[in-house]
Amino acid sequence: MLKKIDHIGVAVQSLEQVKGLFAAVFGLEPEFEETVEEQKVRAAGFRIGESKIEFLEPTSPESPIAKFLEKRGEGLHHVALSVDDIVAVLGKMKAQGLRLIDEAPRTGAEGKKIAFVHPKSVSGILLELSQENS
Amino acid sequence: MLKKIDHIGVAVQSLEQVKGLFAAVFGLEPEFEETVEEQKVRAAGFRIGESKIEFLEPTSPESPIAKFLEKRGEGLHHVALSVDDIVAVLGKMKAQGLRLIDEAPRTGAEGKKIAFVHPKSVSGILLELSQENS
Repeated sequence: MLKKIDHIGVAVQSLEQVKGLFAAVFGLEPEFEETVEEQKVRAAGFRIGESKIEFLEPTSPESPIAKFLEKRGEGLHHVALSVDDIVAVLGKMKAQGLRLIDEAPRTGAEGKKIAFVHPKSVSGILLELSQENS
Repeated sequence: MLKKIDHIGVAVQSLEQVKGLFAAVFGLEPEFEETVEEQKVRAAGFRIGESKIEFLEPTSPESPIAKFLEKRGEGLHHVALSVDDIVAVLGKMKAQGLRLIDEAPRTGAEGKKIAFVHPKSVSGILLELSQENS
């Protein structure tokens, strides 16, 4: 049911700094880099085994990531787990009384089905569920 | 050089609650459960693909995890990345001026070589480097 850690998302002030660090220490370039207009962020993702670490830099003070940085500083923003049946998982979470941010999956990057679960329900971690488009 | 996310460590108030949740939602039991006397924690680890999620519950108010919970509440405590040459990575980090908690690797669980890097140097994330014993 749980397939892998798809990615962890980290809020940062500067992608350039992170990219410099990954290049110097691990000899690693981002696998992708893109601006997500809807979230007002610029994202860079580094592949690590079957997972990715995505760094998120706000492109506007209105970005949710800018607000996160203001309140908590740099750090983990969310953890995304890949599941094989997102609708079934959401149903079981609802039955357990978990606080779902998305009651039904919506379409994320690369056509994946995604849904977020509130940190209050998952040990203080903003959880993203994702299911590959198949 | 970077092989995989070995595990992410999450500070929680109650392992029982997390275990109940994983069983009910994902049908998953912990792959291991153990008390780490040195850190005054009880840990339960769930396998997810090539990685694990480890939940850490303090067994004493003196535990570093108890202090973390007091200050920040439940949430991500550390991210452990598996590397193939921990000494080389630590050397490159030092050359970049990163703040190392362990300048040289020490022996962790399962005979792994591990070292921690200060969150101030890694986007607010307490980073654990680990190298399999070979």
